[in-house]
Amino acid sequence: MDAYRIVIDTEGSDKGAATIVKGACLALEKYEALNLTLVGKEECIKEYLTEAGAHYLTDGRLEIIHASDAITNYDSPAKALFEKPDSSLVRALSALSTRDDLLGVISAGNTGALIAGAMRFLSTPERTRPALAVPLPAENGGTTCLVDTGATVDCTAQMLLHFARLGTAFMSALHNIEAPRVALLSNGSEPTKGNAVVKEAHLLLDEAADINFVGNVEGTNALSGACDVLVADGFAGNMLLKTTEGTARRLITDIVKYAKSTGEEKYMHLAGYLKSLYDFNSMGGAVILGVRKPTFKIHGSSNEQTVVNTVGMLLDMFENTGVFKKGELAAK
Amino acid sequence: MDAYRIVIDTEGSDKGAATIVKGACLALEKYEALNLTLVGKEECIKEYLTEAGAHYLTDGRLEIIHASDAITNYDSPAKALFEKPDSSLVRALSALSTRDDLLGVISAGNTGALIAGAMRFLSTPERTRPALAVPLPAENGGTTCLVDTGATVDCTAQMLLHFARLGTAFMSALHNIEAPRVALLSNGSEPTKGNAVVKEAHLLLDEAADINFVGNVEGTNALSGACDVLVADGFAGNMLLKTTEGTARRLITDIVKYAKSTGEEKYMHLAGYLKSLYDFNSMGGAVILGVRKPTFKIHGSSNEQTVVNTVGMLLDMFENTGVFKKGELAAK
Repeated sequence: MDAYRIVIDTEGSDKGAATIVKGACLALEKYEALNLTLVGKEECIKEYLTEAGAHYLTDGRLEIIHASDAITNYDSPAKALFEKPDSSLVRALSALSTRDDLLGVISAGNTGALIAGAMRFLSTPERTRPALAVPLPAENGGTTCLVDTGATVDCTAQMLLHFARLGTAFMSALHNIEAPRVALLSNGSEPTKGNAVVKEAHLLLDEAADINFVGNVEGTNALSGACDVLVADGFAGNMLLKTTEGTARRLITDIVKYAKSTGEEKYMHLAGYLKSLYDFNSMGGAVILGVRKPTFKIHGSSNEQTVVNTVGMLLDMFENTGVFKKGELAAK
Repeated sequence: MDAYRIVIDTEGSDKGAATIVKGACLALEKYEALNLTLVGKEECIKEYLTEAGAHYLTDGRLEIIHASDAITNYDSPAKALFEKPDSSLVRALSALSTRDDLLGVISAGNTGALIAGAMRFLSTPERTRPALAVPLPAENGGTTCLVDTGATVDCTAQMLLHFARLGTAFMSALHNIEAPRVALLSNGSEPTKGNAVVKEAHLLLDEAADINFVGNVEGTNALSGACDVLVADGFAGNMLLKTTEGTARRLITDIVKYAKSTGEEKYMHLAGYLKSLYDFNSMGGAVILGVRKPTFKIHGSSNEQTVVNTVGMLLDMFENTGVFKKGELAAK
């Protein structure tokens, strides 16, 4: 395995920089092919390093880029990039845009600022709209990548076609599959169903020779596993993602109530089991597609393991495809 | 209580006309103030009547309008109205449009044909776009009425404002509340979140003096019970409804699998309990708003009890408000 260097923004986590730094150290222990560049307050990062982590600092696998400031969730995404040039997020993306050895980035910070930053520092020459894609656990045990979940809420049919291409490239890289099945989110499975943009996108996807289009899917069975890539505008995609999370949480709450009313401890175990199944939080995170280098957004509430899992996804992508390999830019 | 006459289309049910006719007889037994007009094949209806039902036929509480044809789910909604003038659906709506004593209609038939038919026979003088509203069980035990769930997938901000007014009138009538709380479905709770149409609708709703607007809600907590009316275009609303149903069904399947793997019968009881909580089917159905008379669509798979429940909702509406009372048209 080649060596790959990934950038991690240590700020923006609800649990503080310590969690991110500890996750980074665990990832370095787990993956031999991994080099890391941590961006944040140098003194803090050094303080939070595990014993093994401190060792990686001396042997070169771990590097620190100091950033004195941090963008918070209270900052306006549009303004933050310009008002906080010394923030970890800006420093991280700016390093990524200029250094060929940095291959991707992970951040738990302000999603809007990360998207805006990725567009500013890592946009493609065509300056296409980015998509925030989320790989979700499907009912059949597989993974369905939902593109977009909120980066671009007003979409044309051409943009949805572009999202299908981005999702195809991403899932090919992530799972090493040749022709990921692409479906379009609609209010009915028939080609004639959908709003005006979705109907037009259906025709474009049907005609696109480079897309393995399998047709429309509805909300009812969007995550059945019948497709690898699920295309939606950012508004409908956000709705699907959040409604799935909200409904799962609601049923789990119902089970906990039922457990308490019956006094049966067993139901609490079941609730815990389901919580782990639908804890999209721990699955790895979201990824901004349509920019030059893989930019991963993990939840603000992520723990150490989320950092390790997300690093693992990036390494899989680098291994599975030459496109993102060391020294090359990630633009396809 | 005054007497109210409701029309029931006996065709279009997956379970056959017998189920609808039996439900109608049960409703007549339960509600003294109810008169019914059943539309369908006269001989069949007479055959399916219960003993009590046959009695209502002689005392005038029950009336039959014969229709020799039926619209099925395989018929194209747009064509069916014209190709099947003798269908129960067309006969029912046409009777409603001309007779003042008929106050509302219930049908388990083809949704698209029912919407198209309601627009043709019961449209308002302004010919506004209709909405298919679905009252849903909220997390706090209340009811949230989702408007629209698919009748109008391409909406302007003005249409969303109109849907808010329709939902307000409906929930006022149904639950006898003065100022139902109205929320707007969006991808974030902040007023600045949403696609272009939703952002504009937020401003319109905020300014409308006749709407008790409580702001945006996201998919995560759309059905928490924080609002009585949830406004969405038919595309997003359909997504919310079907994703909620699909996710609930998925978790229930997980529980059944878990029950089988552990061999614990108890978990099967829990699965059954949750199934009844999230069986939107038995809740009463959907209602077409924006037409002159309340037009209820119940699921094709509805049972006798669904018919009784839906009749009950209509009677509540007639009792709670003068608007829909006997002899008056339902336009507001």
